[in-house]
Amino acid sequence: MNLQATPLGIGESKITGAFWHGFTEKARTQVIPYQWKALNDQIPDAEPSRALRNFRIAAGLEQGEFYGFVFQDSDVAKWLEAVAYSLMTHPDAELENTSDGVIDLVVSAQQPDGYLNTHFIIKGLDKRFKNLRDDHELYCLGHFLEAAVAYKQATGKDKLLNAMIKYVDLVDSTFGTEEGKLRGYPGHQEIELALVKLYGVTKDEKHLRLAQYFIDERGNRPFYFNGEHPKGTTNHRYHQSHAPVRDQKTATGHSVRALYMYAGMADVARETGDESLLSACRTLWEDVTRKQMYITGGVGQTHHGEAFTYGYDLPNDTVYAETCASIALVFFAQRMFNIEPKGEYADVMERALYNGTISGMSADGEAFFYVNPLEVVPEACEKDWGRKHVKAQRQKWFGCSCCPPNLARMLTSLGSYAYSKRGDTLYVNVYAGGSVDTQLASGTLGLDIATNYPHEGSAEIKIRQADKNAVLALRIPGWCEKYDIKRNSGIFYGDEADGYVFISDLRANDTIVLTMDMPVTMIQANPKVRENTGKAAVTRGPVVYCLEEADNGKNLHRVNLPFDANFIASYDKLFFGGAVRLQSEGKRMVCEDGDALYSKAAPASYEDITLYWVPYYLWANRGAGEMTCWVRCNNAIIQKKEK
Amino acid sequence: MNLQATPLGIGESKITGAFWHGFTEKARTQVIPYQWKALNDQIPDAEPSRALRNFRIAAGLEQGEFYGFVFQDSDVAKWLEAVAYSLMTHPDAELENTSDGVIDLVVSAQQPDGYLNTHFIIKGLDKRFKNLRDDHELYCLGHFLEAAVAYKQATGKDKLLNAMIKYVDLVDSTFGTEEGKLRGYPGHQEIELALVKLYGVTKDEKHLRLAQYFIDERGNRPFYFNGEHPKGTTNHRYHQSHAPVRDQKTATGHSVRALYMYAGMADVARETGDESLLSACRTLWEDVTRKQMYITGGVGQTHHGEAFTYGYDLPNDTVYAETCASIALVFFAQRMFNIEPKGEYADVMERALYNGTISGMSADGEAFFYVNPLEVVPEACEKDWGRKHVKAQRQKWFGCSCCPPNLARMLTSLGSYAYSKRGDTLYVNVYAGGSVDTQLASGTLGLDIATNYPHEGSAEIKIRQADKNAVLALRIPGWCEKYDIKRNSGIFYGDEADGYVFISDLRANDTIVLTMDMPVTMIQANPKVRENTGKAAVTRGPVVYCLEEADNGKNLHRVNLPFDANFIASYDKLFFGGAVRLQSEGKRMVCEDGDALYSKAAPASYEDITLYWVPYYLWANRGAGEMTCWVRCNNAIIQKKEK
Repeated sequence: MNLQATPLGIGESKITGAFWHGFTEKARTQVIPYQWKALNDQIPDAEPSRALRNFRIAAGLEQGEFYGFVFQDSDVAKWLEAVAYSLMTHPDAELENTSDGVIDLVVSAQQPDGYLNTHFIIKGLDKRFKNLRDDHELYCLGHFLEAAVAYKQATGKDKLLNAMIKYVDLVDSTFGTEEGKLRGYPGHQEIELALVKLYGVTKDEKHLRLAQYFIDERGNRPFYFNGEHPKGTTNHRYHQSHAPVRDQKTATGHSVRALYMYAGMADVARETGDESLLSACRTLWEDVTRKQMYITGGVGQTHHGEAFTYGYDLPNDTVYAETCASIALVFFAQRMFNIEPKGEYADVMERALYNGTISGMSADGEAFFYVNPLEVVPEACEKDWGRKHVKAQRQKWFGCSCCPPNLARMLTSLGSYAYSKRGDTLYVNVYAGGSVDTQLASGTLGLDIATNYPHEGSAEIKIRQADKNAVLALRIPGWCEKYDIKRNSGIFYGDEADGYVFISDLRANDTIVLTMDMPVTMIQANPKVRENTGKAAVTRGPVVYCLEEADNGKNLHRVNLPFDANFIASYDKLFFGGAVRLQSEGKRMVCEDGDALYSKAAPASYEDITLYWVPYYLWANRGAGEMTCWVRCNNAIIQKKEK
Repeated sequence: MNLQATPLGIGESKITGAFWHGFTEKARTQVIPYQWKALNDQIPDAEPSRALRNFRIAAGLEQGEFYGFVFQDSDVAKWLEAVAYSLMTHPDAELENTSDGVIDLVVSAQQPDGYLNTHFIIKGLDKRFKNLRDDHELYCLGHFLEAAVAYKQATGKDKLLNAMIKYVDLVDSTFGTEEGKLRGYPGHQEIELALVKLYGVTKDEKHLRLAQYFIDERGNRPFYFNGEHPKGTTNHRYHQSHAPVRDQKTATGHSVRALYMYAGMADVARETGDESLLSACRTLWEDVTRKQMYITGGVGQTHHGEAFTYGYDLPNDTVYAETCASIALVFFAQRMFNIEPKGEYADVMERALYNGTISGMSADGEAFFYVNPLEVVPEACEKDWGRKHVKAQRQKWFGCSCCPPNLARMLTSLGSYAYSKRGDTLYVNVYAGGSVDTQLASGTLGLDIATNYPHEGSAEIKIRQADKNAVLALRIPGWCEKYDIKRNSGIFYGDEADGYVFISDLRANDTIVLTMDMPVTMIQANPKVRENTGKAAVTRGPVVYCLEEADNGKNLHRVNLPFDANFIASYDKLFFGGAVRLQSEGKRMVCEDGDALYSKAAPASYEDITLYWVPYYLWANRGAGEMTCWVRCNNAIIQKKEK
């Protein structure tokens, strides 16, 4: 394997560009405090979390029953992880004090042998590790490991880390191939990637080997879950435990489990140099991103099992596309990129970042989508139980609230996705604006990036200091057909390789300006995608647009987008903090009140209308209404060339 | 209310036209014997029924446990009813002997107070009538009443009828508004229409009043089902018990329950002259048939609750459209027609008869669909749990086997749908071919109809004998734009009223020839139907056509039907007993293997192909494959006139 890249440390960049600064600040100043209230059951009219109360009960500080899902603990862990990332860029003594208190509480519930899961501490330790398939103990541990590692990196404090290492020791002595151990693995993957993160700070081979064990053991016969459940039946595909991971060729089952696993596989492959595992990752990557991914970076086509279905099956209205699944896709993409830095990985990461992840959060940061549909008719969500999982408006908090804290931790750690470094090269993957100060192989590189991306297609990079060997790799997104780079006053002629232009010989005070044409583009889906045949989506740069009832009225299925429509893009600074909105020509099929349900086909009548488009990530901020990303665009046929 | 029509007695017509004779003979010679085997658990590789065994156990003739659904008894009743109709047209001593034996068995299980339901006789009579919402006792009684009435009419034997009257007496003394009675009503409607049938033979007002009670009591507050289930919650809409029936404006909930109820409402309205009830029937009729009905006469848009959803929501692939629901729609249509003979009712009846009902049965009469989709992709049925209820091939028998015997009883009683009489008028609703001999108000009418309908659009009617007041009302279907009628050698100029042409002054040896143009017609759905926008369906006469993978390959969503396509219709005598197949011009969108999942929209390439169409009722007789009724027809836009 070649030299690998690593994500930039979160403290090594500051994100100040208008777009992402808005989101990361929302995460820091709105979501983290809001979720703190949620964890403490202080959100009116929302389902209580009681996650912290569970820890108080488990620690013997309060009397009561366990409340919530078996994985309720993980919400606390994800909140702590988000706090840790936030502290890296925005030190906050009060917040750190609060989270120190949470860590004290968490650790006080730990059992003498290291075990730490409030569900089983409260309900009976005799049942621990008895139902790995359903009980999420290793999943919760994974999230606490991620939190502990982040908290150590942010604050230098290792109380949570040491507690979790103790828990890992217990897990390591319980599971494995050695005589006397259980050959189990988690029903919900997550611990695999978390153990590799732990290994990153401990450098203890045991931690890597345990991750490797969980990956390698999964799906072997006889199936472990069958042994756990001799009477029931297990849908092994749901858990990706139907086959050894290296034999899995298509993404299947619960999409978050799948993508956490793929990310963990990539982690283990990276650390061990296991080519067969990396090859499996590539195969699964291609299946997910070339056959089963929505244009928004949404994944998981069906709410039955919150699962993948099969290639080119991408229904827009019955979709699941859980926020967490898109976040997990970002994780997977980031890891694949760092193993082999290629634009393809960054393109998918960008697609999910600008669309299917942040669509999960309202503009005010206080309401969240679990499901991110590409087409919504509110009446269907109310009256068809097959679409009841789709909501036309974000909810305040969920009984199963995995998505909000997951978004918070992704946003507060955005710098680790925006930048990677390999040897002396700094990769700029996301034009997020702000500054970078990092140590490369030979020396330091410091720079500032001014950009209004993705509202505009340009970025100005000023080098503050640069080692003579430092190389800047600027990403040219897959959507970009035309760009130029100016270095100081002259045009820079650099070759593009794998989606990046490499600029070396950097000097302090160099100014590099990347300008990308960012026209509005009509996108077609592969003809194999049944649901989008004869339709087009509209994008501008990385941003997918949609039509909303608020701007375009009801019955969006009657709207037609002419193939040669002209678009006007304009920045509306008043639209939820500023966003580029589009207008285009459009047509709407005329419908008379007296029209029969079925009648002899006749040419449809269309009226000319103006279509108003908003970024998908901002949809559903103006009340419940229809929305669609894919719009009928039948005129394509008019211009067809016969074969 | 005006003079009402009545269905022709089943023994008053013989059906010998090629099309329906094929189906009715299949019902008589294949389905009834096949279902007899099924009831006796003699079908290899199929789920056992054990319905007769339940009766033997209940009668104390055999030891064992109750098996099957709580409504397992009804399969026996529906089989008996089908047998009775069959005996009316085809006396069969052996079959009558067999069914006499079944009746002996059924009656031997009856309790001293009249109660007769094997589930509760076996599992404990203390639970009887305690859970009307779920337990189907009144539903099963309804089916036995229908069977008993039919058997009496067929054979003159009243053993089953008397037993059921005794059971009705028990029900009548248990339920009602009088002091001391339970104010309950069935969770699954059916007994209402059955009691009116019973009233038709007994003329006992008590039977009509009990039907009326069940209709009038339903949906009153406080909700009876809430009292039965103080701790649980009831989805009252599912049971159509959310409001008094006269206040129900839209079809909602479980579609078979709903339509059986509407049929029962129409029956009670007819017998009592209750205008408010008839008005409710008309409102619900319009909602069902003008907003919630598939082009096939399928009803029930979602498998969640096997239910209606809302107006113009007609998804083709996640549809339910249970065979029983289309049969129930035929029942409702027949009743509405007989109250006010209008072509609209006959048109819907015809739509369901030629498409969504008989599609439930395989060409060999041995396999059945529960769900009748309008679009199938076998891979989706396997891999998306949201479409797993849709099968790409008919099944041998179902654990819940309501549909096969329901089809059998509809087919064996087809004459009562094909013909109605009112005063001196005989209505010919379905051109089924064969003979009619009936007593009209003033005298008799005997005639023979020779037709190859719906393969051809003509029918030749020879009058054998006719009272001087007799009038023949020939239906001109709603699909028919052009027809002529010849009476003997001359053109007959008669006015068409409400979809019928009335011919009076009939003489023996008159020959009347109706010739209807039956071109292939492209049909559009109302523009409010999201799923069919930009698509067309193809019909010829009453028959809806579809494309199957067997003829047209996979990826039917890539097929385009030019708006001006030419069709060739030809009778294929070798195609499952003879059917009209169609060919047309078509185009198929070209898809290259390397096509990206998303790419910049470009004019699609199309290749010219020939499309091969088969009648929808014959789909899925050649193995599992894709199928679609609605085909993209975007060229409509080319010809559009701008407003």
